Amino acid sequence: MNQPVLDFFFEFASPYSYLSAARIDTVAASHGIAVRWRPFLLGPIFRSQGWETSPFNIYPAKGRYMWRDVERQAHARGLPFVRPDPFPQNGLLGARCVLAADEDARPTAAHAIFHAAFEAGQQIGDPEVIGAALAAAGLDAPAILAAASGDPVKAALRANTDAAIAHGIFGAPSFVTPDGEMFWGDDRMEDALQWSRQHV
Amino acid sequence: MNQPVLDFFFEFASPYSYLSAARIDTVAASHGIAVRWRPFLLGPIFRSQGWETSPFNIYPAKGRYMWRDVERQAHARGLPFVRPDPFPQNGLLGARCVLAADEDARPTAAHAIFHAAFEAGQQIGDPEVIGAALAAAGLDAPAILAAASGDPVKAALRANTDAAIAHGIFGAPSFVTPDGEMFWGDDRMEDALQWSRQHV
Repeated sequence: MNQPVLDFFFEFASPYSYLSAARIDTVAASHGIAVRWRPFLLGPIFRSQGWETSPFNIYPAKGRYMWRDVERQAHARGLPFVRPDPFPQNGLLGARCVLAADEDARPTAAHAIFHAAFEAGQQIGDPEVIGAALAAAGLDAPAILAAASGDPVKAALRANTDAAIAHGIFGAPSFVTPDGEMFWGDDRMEDALQWSRQHV
Repeated sequence: MNQPVLDFFFEFASPYSYLSAARIDTVAASHGIAVRWRPFLLGPIFRSQGWETSPFNIYPAKGRYMWRDVERQAHARGLPFVRPDPFPQNGLLGARCVLAADEDARPTAAHAIFHAAFEAGQQIGDPEVIGAALAAAGLDAPAILAAASGDPVKAALRANTDAAIAHGIFGAPSFVTPDGEMFWGDDRMEDALQWSRQHV
């Protein structure tokens, strides 16, 4: 029997997506659940709420707390963490590159880009940064970058963002179970995996 | 040696405050931490951000998710849960009554008011509802209601809200450790208790 598949909706601009990306493969495997890595864009969702930047920038108290919280969480997990500057980074190119990679290679591509953004503190909107990150991860960076600007990949990213909106997603990371239940936030990863196992 | 004390900032309008109130005594005791119950008001904090109602009402996708999430969490914990209508309820009178009770009786008063709001589905802005809830919990309801409208209690509630703002609190529940570290959300209760134990 095939494993149930949990959809992992993530954004390269999102600090909590970084925290989830670092652990989801291990945690999902321990639950017997497969993961589909689905990059999407928060920008269109935020703009539809009238926000022109991250709510962490719009609401300073919330932003200050978020940075402290992510720093604490990363420290407790033994993860490096560098605060991206400027924040938010533009996750568009990274998201397209993940979708330009073969499905099997998408987690590797995503890890490389999260590393660039939240561990190396690099500008992930820059094609040279992304190319170097993909190459360092052993991927065919020129081929991925070329495909990333093609219409099929652009359409695939729009489809992921549309799917996120259809699932009621308003932030990242979010998780959607095989039966369509949506969970928001790194703190709900275990709940989403347990739900996926119990509602096949 | 006295136990370390965790400050528990809660709002009677807040569904996640209800979830935390239902378990904090037990969880804190298991960590060897005492709890100081500190009702405060989110209204002034929200208004300072330009919000005239709960963000769960302003942002419908977030609101829809919140109700589903609280329902799932309550179910998983074996807790009754009724969605307050209208939402948010006015938590002012409840907050004042908690502060009008003797310090030892405050958790009992708070449990009674959360029960009225999130289990019985009552209008907790109504003094008769609050009076009946306090009386059913074995408290001296007339004395508490009388003290609740006095200046010392009004000042104590303003002081709690001011302290919340000074700690950077922007939502409820929030927890402040003896060394001033702030944690937001029911999901961070265990982290806040662990921090309190490790940073005495």
